Amino acid sequence: MATKEIRAFGTEAAEAPLDSLNIQRRDVTPHDVEIDILFCGICHSDLHTARNEWHGSVYPVVPGHEIVGKVTRVGNHVSKFKVGELAAVGCMVDSCRECESCKDGLEQYCEAGNTLTYNSPDKHLGGHTYGGYSESIVVDEHFALHVPESLDLAAAAPLLCAGVTTYSPLKHWGVGPGVKVGIVGIGGLGHMGVKLAKAMGAHVVVITTSASKTDDAKRLGAHEVILSSDAKQMRENANSLDFILDCVSASHDINAYLRLLKRDGTLALVGAPEHPLPVAAFSLIPSRRSLAGSTIGSIGETQEMLDFCAQHNITADIELINIQDVNKAYDRLLKGDVHYRFVIDMASLKN
Amino acid sequence: MATKEIRAFGTEAAEAPLDSLNIQRRDVTPHDVEIDILFCGICHSDLHTARNEWHGSVYPVVPGHEIVGKVTRVGNHVSKFKVGELAAVGCMVDSCRECESCKDGLEQYCEAGNTLTYNSPDKHLGGHTYGGYSESIVVDEHFALHVPESLDLAAAAPLLCAGVTTYSPLKHWGVGPGVKVGIVGIGGLGHMGVKLAKAMGAHVVVITTSASKTDDAKRLGAHEVILSSDAKQMRENANSLDFILDCVSASHDINAYLRLLKRDGTLALVGAPEHPLPVAAFSLIPSRRSLAGSTIGSIGETQEMLDFCAQHNITADIELINIQDVNKAYDRLLKGDVHYRFVIDMASLKN
Repeated sequence: MATKEIRAFGTEAAEAPLDSLNIQRRDVTPHDVEIDILFCGICHSDLHTARNEWHGSVYPVVPGHEIVGKVTRVGNHVSKFKVGELAAVGCMVDSCRECESCKDGLEQYCEAGNTLTYNSPDKHLGGHTYGGYSESIVVDEHFALHVPESLDLAAAAPLLCAGVTTYSPLKHWGVGPGVKVGIVGIGGLGHMGVKLAKAMGAHVVVITTSASKTDDAKRLGAHEVILSSDAKQMRENANSLDFILDCVSASHDINAYLRLLKRDGTLALVGAPEHPLPVAAFSLIPSRRSLAGSTIGSIGETQEMLDFCAQHNITADIELINIQDVNKAYDRLLKGDVHYRFVIDMASLKN
Repeated sequence: MATKEIRAFGTEAAEAPLDSLNIQRRDVTPHDVEIDILFCGICHSDLHTARNEWHGSVYPVVPGHEIVGKVTRVGNHVSKFKVGELAAVGCMVDSCRECESCKDGLEQYCEAGNTLTYNSPDKHLGGHTYGGYSESIVVDEHFALHVPESLDLAAAAPLLCAGVTTYSPLKHWGVGPGVKVGIVGIGGLGHMGVKLAKAMGAHVVVITTSASKTDDAKRLGAHEVILSSDAKQMRENANSLDFILDCVSASHDINAYLRLLKRDGTLALVGAPEHPLPVAAFSLIPSRRSLAGSTIGSIGETQEMLDFCAQHNITADIELINIQDVNKAYDRLLKGDVHYRFVIDMASLKN
């Protein structure tokens, strides 16, 4: 299969910093689009994978799954895109398309295992997939999204992962007018959760460990803030929420949050703490509560979310950086020193 | 308020064996029925409470919340029962009737705290409530159930707790034809879960640690048995079940069971392990699974379940004992040496 060598930014080993390197992209096949990448968000998964913290990394790792760009070529059967149009790619670039989940339009739960945008086996070229810290990407049109023209493109990039990862569970668990939603953890995911839940018409309650985040939570759209370190506030708000979106990746006392749920309420994990969370049966049984988990979102939901964001003028709060500063950005990400998402201006790759 | 002294069986302290004692029952008030108790099942909660294992027991404890008997008196506003009719009482004898859960007909989730059949504050006499290890009980007609005449009365007693505790979640999570249900833990609760799920038309899979239970699981109605101690069987059955009813009260590896669930499947705990269960986020997130809990069932569901059991000729598998043997029965219960529920023939209290 014909390929093209392009410039990218990645790492050759868990301990090595990210640096400039070259990778191969396939030529467009009949259903492919080629996208010139304008912006790419930095997700915590990028760092986990670059540093092999999930123990499955194959090197070189070229991270990046919050990709916004412009279509530069299309295969001869492509009907969804024209050259020159905006296009985006999120966490997936393929799935089996035959299992029950794929048939249900839920490619994120593909039972054969979907192809992630980076560090997944590459069905076309062999080897593994390379993400959006690169000049361009070639992807089946089904896995490319339309980006509404009205959105700020740099600030729209994080919608492709942080946006849909929060949008999907909010929709799945019926968040809307009359629903009281808690958002735990105001970072890349959580700040999107607040904006989206607010736009869906819900009553939004941010639950945070840190009083210093109160003003910002309200600026993002929260109607109320509960300080989780204040036992009195937590007690007073027991049994008050219909749904909680838990965006925390660190270990935390999940029982304290479960007790905030009303009868039949659900707490959905979208952050993935490394160690198991100890769950007391009595946090669930007396009010028929549920602890659930959710991962990213389908291609259909991603498009729906982008259109919803255009309608409500929602993007991420970002800090735009050059690709040469990605290692510094990772270090700051580890300290939580970002409000709320780094996005790489991919023009800097050409420097 | 006028009271009547009756004979009962209970304990004066956590360390003391159960023995004969006398308690007071109130006279029937306008909405009360008085029930002469014929049979009372022995639930593991009876033992937990008698021995103060849940740390809230008030003595004397008179356990028993699987009560079947005959109406001997009715208050002057009672419309639901006539003297001489069969009647049953389960885990609750009252609730606030004003909260959202009570208004929704879900008294088991009463937000003000319902009145349990034993060891709850007694609104009428002060002190605390006494359960079914006694000659008779006086209860508001709303909390008394009709017992279909066709059921074996002794074997029907466990339906009042073990029956409805499994029926309620099976119904709530939509178990029926086309649904593949796992039942974990074949004891008092689990054996009822198998019978009920089978009668609901589901495909029933028993998951057990012990190969010796395979034949009995099939006799009870299971279509398949998975040995949880066999890693290969567990792996082969990953992502295969729509719903799991987990009836185990001991600590167990919940992640192994969660992995048996399909996308969007729920595992509901009805047993209540003493220690928190470590739940890996990755047991939930990749297939949007839920870990939930459920407690007993509403009065409406209890009646529905009794009628369902009459229609399908379902009762518990029991061992009938005299009340004088209750301490021996508790010791055997602790060893799991019962197939599957002890029921006390309350005529023996008169000996």
